[in-house]
Amino acid sequence: MRLPVAAACLFAIAAYAMDAGHPLRGYTPEDSATEVTWEQKFRALPDRDHIRENMRRLSARPHHVGSPYDKDNAEWLLAQLKSFGLDAKIETFSALFPTPKSRKLELLGPTPFTAKLQEPPVSVDPTSSQTSEQLPTYNAYSRDGDVTAPLVYVNYGRPEDYDVLDRMGVSVKGAIVIARYGASWRGIKPKVAAEHGAVGCIIYSDPREDGYYQGDTYPQGPMRPPDGAQRGSVMDMPIYPGDPQTPGVGAVEGVKLIPIDQVQTITKIPVLPISYADATPFLKALGGETAPEAWRGGLPLTYHVGPSTAKAHLAVSFNWDRKPLNDVVARIPGSKFPDEWVIRGNHHDAWVNGAEDPLSGASPELEEARSLGELLKEGWKPSRTIIYCFWDGEEPALLGSTEWAEYHADELKQHAVAYFNSDGNGRGYFGVEGSHSLENFVNDVAKDIQDPETKMSVWKRVRLVDISRATPQIRTEIRSRPDMRIPALGSGSDYTVFIDHLGVASVNLGYGGEDEGGQYHSIYDDFYYYTHFLDTTFDYERALAQTAGTMVLRMADADTLPFQFSDLADTVHLYVTQLKTLATEKRDEAKERDQEISDGVYQALYDPKKNMVPPPVEPIPPYLNFAPLDQASDDLTDAAKAFDAAYANAGGNPPDGLNADLIRSERLLTDDRGLPNRPWFQHLLYAPGFYTGYGVKTIPGVREAIEQKKWSEANEQIIRVSAALEHEADLLKQATQLLPAKKAE
Amino acid sequence: MRLPVAAACLFAIAAYAMDAGHPLRGYTPEDSATEVTWEQKFRALPDRDHIRENMRRLSARPHHVGSPYDKDNAEWLLAQLKSFGLDAKIETFSALFPTPKSRKLELLGPTPFTAKLQEPPVSVDPTSSQTSEQLPTYNAYSRDGDVTAPLVYVNYGRPEDYDVLDRMGVSVKGAIVIARYGASWRGIKPKVAAEHGAVGCIIYSDPREDGYYQGDTYPQGPMRPPDGAQRGSVMDMPIYPGDPQTPGVGAVEGVKLIPIDQVQTITKIPVLPISYADATPFLKALGGETAPEAWRGGLPLTYHVGPSTAKAHLAVSFNWDRKPLNDVVARIPGSKFPDEWVIRGNHHDAWVNGAEDPLSGASPELEEARSLGELLKEGWKPSRTIIYCFWDGEEPALLGSTEWAEYHADELKQHAVAYFNSDGNGRGYFGVEGSHSLENFVNDVAKDIQDPETKMSVWKRVRLVDISRATPQIRTEIRSRPDMRIPALGSGSDYTVFIDHLGVASVNLGYGGEDEGGQYHSIYDDFYYYTHFLDTTFDYERALAQTAGTMVLRMADADTLPFQFSDLADTVHLYVTQLKTLATEKRDEAKERDQEISDGVYQALYDPKKNMVPPPVEPIPPYLNFAPLDQASDDLTDAAKAFDAAYANAGGNPPDGLNADLIRSERLLTDDRGLPNRPWFQHLLYAPGFYTGYGVKTIPGVREAIEQKKWSEANEQIIRVSAALEHEADLLKQATQLLPAKKAE
Repeated sequence: MRLPVAAACLFAIAAYAMDAGHPLRGYTPEDSATEVTWEQKFRALPDRDHIRENMRRLSARPHHVGSPYDKDNAEWLLAQLKSFGLDAKIETFSALFPTPKSRKLELLGPTPFTAKLQEPPVSVDPTSSQTSEQLPTYNAYSRDGDVTAPLVYVNYGRPEDYDVLDRMGVSVKGAIVIARYGASWRGIKPKVAAEHGAVGCIIYSDPREDGYYQGDTYPQGPMRPPDGAQRGSVMDMPIYPGDPQTPGVGAVEGVKLIPIDQVQTITKIPVLPISYADATPFLKALGGETAPEAWRGGLPLTYHVGPSTAKAHLAVSFNWDRKPLNDVVARIPGSKFPDEWVIRGNHHDAWVNGAEDPLSGASPELEEARSLGELLKEGWKPSRTIIYCFWDGEEPALLGSTEWAEYHADELKQHAVAYFNSDGNGRGYFGVEGSHSLENFVNDVAKDIQDPETKMSVWKRVRLVDISRATPQIRTEIRSRPDMRIPALGSGSDYTVFIDHLGVASVNLGYGGEDEGGQYHSIYDDFYYYTHFLDTTFDYERALAQTAGTMVLRMADADTLPFQFSDLADTVHLYVTQLKTLATEKRDEAKERDQEISDGVYQALYDPKKNMVPPPVEPIPPYLNFAPLDQASDDLTDAAKAFDAAYANAGGNPPDGLNADLIRSERLLTDDRGLPNRPWFQHLLYAPGFYTGYGVKTIPGVREAIEQKKWSEANEQIIRVSAALEHEADLLKQATQLLPAKKAE
Repeated sequence: MRLPVAAACLFAIAAYAMDAGHPLRGYTPEDSATEVTWEQKFRALPDRDHIRENMRRLSARPHHVGSPYDKDNAEWLLAQLKSFGLDAKIETFSALFPTPKSRKLELLGPTPFTAKLQEPPVSVDPTSSQTSEQLPTYNAYSRDGDVTAPLVYVNYGRPEDYDVLDRMGVSVKGAIVIARYGASWRGIKPKVAAEHGAVGCIIYSDPREDGYYQGDTYPQGPMRPPDGAQRGSVMDMPIYPGDPQTPGVGAVEGVKLIPIDQVQTITKIPVLPISYADATPFLKALGGETAPEAWRGGLPLTYHVGPSTAKAHLAVSFNWDRKPLNDVVARIPGSKFPDEWVIRGNHHDAWVNGAEDPLSGASPELEEARSLGELLKEGWKPSRTIIYCFWDGEEPALLGSTEWAEYHADELKQHAVAYFNSDGNGRGYFGVEGSHSLENFVNDVAKDIQDPETKMSVWKRVRLVDISRATPQIRTEIRSRPDMRIPALGSGSDYTVFIDHLGVASVNLGYGGEDEGGQYHSIYDDFYYYTHFLDTTFDYERALAQTAGTMVLRMADADTLPFQFSDLADTVHLYVTQLKTLATEKRDEAKERDQEISDGVYQALYDPKKNMVPPPVEPIPPYLNFAPLDQASDDLTDAAKAFDAAYANAGGNPPDGLNADLIRSERLLTDDRGLPNRPWFQHLLYAPGFYTGYGVKTIPGVREAIEQKKWSEANEQIIRVSAALEHEADLLKQATQLLPAKKAE
């Protein structure tokens, strides 16, 4: 067996924990030593050539939901997993998945133009010419529609962009909006446009964010070329993801389907994504004022807000078919705690060939599974049951993971310890986001992974890089805090159903930050692209396998689950402070705006050459009662400190019932009633924003109530969140009782 | 006589001061009432049609220094001033003024390109076709040169941009740099490039700052078209402005000339300005890494830092001729204080037709002079001597004003009370910068000028607009401070010699902020352009005449000069605080950088695909002794408060010697030895930055020493500035003694 040099260094790093006399958290000293040995063996196994070959094979043809190669890949994955000696199967569900029947976008008027809507093959890139199998450029779950109307440019199409248009006296009522990709998740753009009365929505990739402004374009460089377009879902996933016809339940044979015309998550207006080459004539047709500075993109033209004199004609229709979803699931039974499940997942479906998205995550995951198979052959027996999942249908709406988890919801609520997700992966710095009861755990694992380029630990590297980019205040915090903070989970990948719907502690991880790329959801995201411009050595593909695999191993083998709550409590305090600041800012902003209106600021700004509409006078936001949240977060902090101290004192030995309590700890942060107007989302600390889509809102019930000026709802949600935090504190107190009292000295 | 409606409103505004029982500052109640009447009459006189006609006539042909129409304009101005009944003459000086003999810029290599270097006539714009009289696009005071070298892109070409290149491992040694216009004055770009070893410098107008990114291009809109280029001086004016061959003395017949090859202010390397159409092939030829985000402009290409493989060939040669300067000067003798001079100026020369620059300032100035002539006919006699100047040769190097003021230096030091400057002017908000002993004065005048669009005072308008754009902290200050702060003077117009060399209290004023334009220093800055895109109604041209004229009148007629020193002292305190903050920041930055180096941040940032050079370890800046400045600014504050109180108590009656003291007050802020390495600049509070060019550096001796890490120089300069401030405080104490003691109540 070849032992790479880098792995030798890893031994040195991993050995540190033991040398310094710190057994792994949640392990007895003896079990820790054994575990460290297994982890070291594990991390020597992932092979860059294997991962490269996985990617090559899986990306060889387009493999979107329902395509022949999607099924072929699932079967190949199944065969691979079985060949590793794992107990694997394909679990099949189904989901509504619209594909284009017809797409048309024209500019009418004096200089007519018909959008090409086609990404051309590139000669050096062999798979780019697989035209017959490629899905056309479109936005999935756009409704059918045929509209002709003037155009208005709405920047990123966020609610605040419409405020700016209001100030300029421009309405989108009856118009087709043209929005650029970026700043918010694409599905927010048609949603907000429709709320403002628009009849259609075009979304284009501006070269400022996604093209030559960022770097050389494909195939000279990795950035999006003029005719490149971003496919993607526009389903209203902040309401619920998964099959639109079966919210909350697994879409298996015989389940009752909501009729398509009653589905809440399909867009209200037709939507189509286009390239910047196609967008240019439409943007040039816009009249009206020059767009505000922050709205201008990278095209060589003057951006105007519109409306256009010339009308645009947008017509889209779709095949509203249900398609099979092939989730590939492998299970390694636990030897000591078979009813405690550690779950690992990455999707395998793509919009087209998908080398980066998702195969740069799925290919290492498969290599992890192979490596675990090797360990099993060497005699390793995980204490807990490990489940490796390769999801189908992530791209349209997190379909495969959502249907699987909804179908298995009762078991998962009972048994799931944690879910570890990855998706696209690249060269650079370790990145992780997730449940804060796992913040300490993921920090610990990251300290044991060697960075391929710098040979320091990936934890140290990202910490130093963060320091170099931080404000002085944040820098001080990073330097003084033992654990690096991890961001909360929003949405955009398969962890969503686990964390947000079921309350399973979840982590999303990967590497990135050194290479920039621009083939997201295009035909050019393929093997040629990845192997020429991204992690060309596959060093970080290997690092991902090592990192995610170590997390799975360490979680599965722990005597006592390595959850930790001081970091959670500290994070909750931070969020509460942010909420108070937000409330104060909203009040100050309103006071200032009203003051300026009465002082005559808007008369002073009057410009006869421009249309300027002063903002309306609005009531001043009331003070909110944050006392319950202050009390609950303090109680949580006290309980967490006591628990973590008792846990440390216990030396890894798990008293009866403690692991069960720890598994419940994330569940207690959810509420069956869900968030206001979106009951599927049940986590009270984390949710994708109703108007951001991917971007997280922490303590979302309260935060979004403040943002949306629903003051009584904010007060109600404070009560609800506070109650959950008090329950969490009670659980920790109860768990602390299970642990041995500290010996008197 | 037609009395426009707006003027009627003005009476109501102006009357306010009297109604509220506040006589004008520096006036006895009786003289104040008389003055208010004259000012009201004055402000009713400026006529928009006259100003428009002035602009049309003066911009009818190109009129750069030494051109036939430059002389023709001077003679016409002279005749106009005489026709107003004023005692006017032309004072002639001469100056070195290079004009192009040959210009060539080529890209060599596989895709050769020769720059057009020509702004094409535009059919709708009648004067744009006066090709035979137009100066070609060039940078005046570039040295002759013929160089062939690879290209490097240096962003704006500031010192900090070269730091970024250093970090990327890119050197400009032996290269031709291509810099974009903006962020620093153009003359800084070749200066810093030469300091770093470059052999040539191309400066281009990027559409991001100056083209379609900002708005529609000419002639559809006001922004710079693809072939538009910005002429302009690149003389090293932060050393000294004016005739390069006669620093410090007026260039009249017989004066000794420094040989051209010994002139310090001519560039060290050849320079040429180009359009963005011409720049595009050169930018496309650049290799190397993608430029940092902040370096990218608005062209549809990927900005790289270079170097280029293909070489560029830059060859320029000039006619190094001396040309006549025709300053037109009119004098109205003072009736009470003929030896106290109030000076008003605006230049009349342009790079080409110059409707905006300078005629939007010169045309109102001429109308002011006409209006003063009308007042004289009605019996008004100014107490002080008023001098109206129309400068020649501002564009190349502030030639006309500098030579005039150097020639009259002894008289001016003796007699000059204040200098009021304008230059380009447009539609929008009142803008003013200047000596802080006049801050209160210009605030007072602005309260009496009615804004044409909003009918509120221009003071109130700009104050409200500033509030709407300020940070909360600044907003609080604006709301609580009786006077609006005025920025300090940097350079870039004819006030420079007055404030910086002679220490004459100076003010620069104008309107703007509503229309954006992009024909600066091009053939398209002409009457068609101004009357289609800028102050098309000439309302703000009239407002400038009213404002500047009111300042001149009020300063000329005051019983006691309306200088005020609490605002000055407050400003000095602010500057001292800024200096301390700067010193602390430099120290903190150095500490942090060294800490990051020793922590391994640069190892962590290592990227094998990129060239990254860590910054050098540098000594930590020492603490500076700010005690003398703290003491002096406190002493100045005490003296200023006492003086302003005594002044208010005096009720306008001037004791003997007080006006003389007030005239001296700005002189005391200068030092004959000048600033380090640039003795021509003698003001200790204000100077254009050595590396910013136009941008002001306040307390420049200390500030630039800190910026340039000259710690002992910083301490020496603190002593020097402190001494001047103590002298100023002593002067105020002495002046306070001249005023009557406040009566006991």
